[in-house]
Amino acid sequence: MGPIHLYFDFLSPYAYIAACELPKLAARFGRVIEPRPVLLAALLSANGQKGPAEIPNKRIYVFKDVVRTAHALGLPLAPPASHPFNPLVALRAASMPMPLPTRARFIDGLWRACWGGERRDISDRNVVAAVARDSGLDGDAVLAFADSDGGKSAVRAQTDQALARGAFGVPSIDVDGELFWGYDAFAHIERRLEGKDPLLAADVAQWRDLPASAQRKY
Amino acid sequence: MGPIHLYFDFLSPYAYIAACELPKLAARFGRVIEPRPVLLAALLSANGQKGPAEIPNKRIYVFKDVVRTAHALGLPLAPPASHPFNPLVALRAASMPMPLPTRARFIDGLWRACWGGERRDISDRNVVAAVARDSGLDGDAVLAFADSDGGKSAVRAQTDQALARGAFGVPSIDVDGELFWGYDAFAHIERRLEGKDPLLAADVAQWRDLPASAQRKY
Repeated sequence: MGPIHLYFDFLSPYAYIAACELPKLAARFGRVIEPRPVLLAALLSANGQKGPAEIPNKRIYVFKDVVRTAHALGLPLAPPASHPFNPLVALRAASMPMPLPTRARFIDGLWRACWGGERRDISDRNVVAAVARDSGLDGDAVLAFADSDGGKSAVRAQTDQALARGAFGVPSIDVDGELFWGYDAFAHIERRLEGKDPLLAADVAQWRDLPASAQRKY
Repeated sequence: MGPIHLYFDFLSPYAYIAACELPKLAARFGRVIEPRPVLLAALLSANGQKGPAEIPNKRIYVFKDVVRTAHALGLPLAPPASHPFNPLVALRAASMPMPLPTRARFIDGLWRACWGGERRDISDRNVVAAVARDSGLDGDAVLAFADSDGGKSAVRAQTDQALARGAFGVPSIDVDGELFWGYDAFAHIERRLEGKDPLLAADVAQWRDLPASAQRKY
């Protein structure tokens, strides 16, 4: 079994919650997590969809829901410096080739910076470099990678891969080829890891092939 | 304290799950539920948003998620006759003035018909009339109400009210003026009913007033 792939964008507070909680769940099954930074905006565009932050009623609801969920889980949470912000430099920096433990430390540092209470602006390249240095990386080398074609194509490739797996949002969690969406799916992920996912026995095709008898007029 | 308002559309399997589970939660707090049929398509249009069934990747994911959740809760579930279907006659019929226990029985019957395993087509007015009769109602009178201006304006008014409360989808659950969305929010609803919602003490304004520093280009 390969690692569990966690597709995420720093823009999403639900991805922050998943980044905090997935390691605990994976560890109980002796599984490794491989974080894969993707551009949420590209996932939304490819699916012809708006993000929660682009729908006023949903934007404030999501923030309230995240406050409640973080409180229930005992996770630190504070509003980022701004939202939405441009996550590209951070996503590309976090995609630089490096050992997995270093990447996990760097990404954790970026999460703490933007959602975990530090209220730093990770759309600012100097902040990204500072977090990289705190994680034992060369801040200048990390920024150089983020600015390079390699940095750009890494995030693009990861985003394309998420889309190919069926992703329409973040966090998306690929467990041995089965994609799960959001912190709300963690109980389902747990049952999957236990080999008790009811879908293993269910007839998914009868749902997929359900005929439509009405369509919404726009 | 007034009743808990459950805004729903028969189109949503998550609203089916909420309709099954909310009575158990409400009963533990001695609270009454008042079901309010709304047109999901109108909520989506008003929020400029697509529904899960309109995004191919999300459509199949939602069905899988619903199979998993219903299995975990021990709820009966089978694909409806078609999806999406036109829910208007059923929504209007379920909005006819009648005593609350009768309405609850009628709506339960419609849920069983479309998602609870019976696989009947509730976009068919004859099915709606049959379920009404099984609930002790006059099937012809129910259809007459559904066809009347009163039936149309009832669903429109309930939908407008949901929007005014901040709804962007279904199920939306209004607990004493605070709106919750989806079965995933039930743990939050429970804490709210216990008087332990962390949001009662949280500074929501700092989240609502967060400045944007980037916007997605379409």
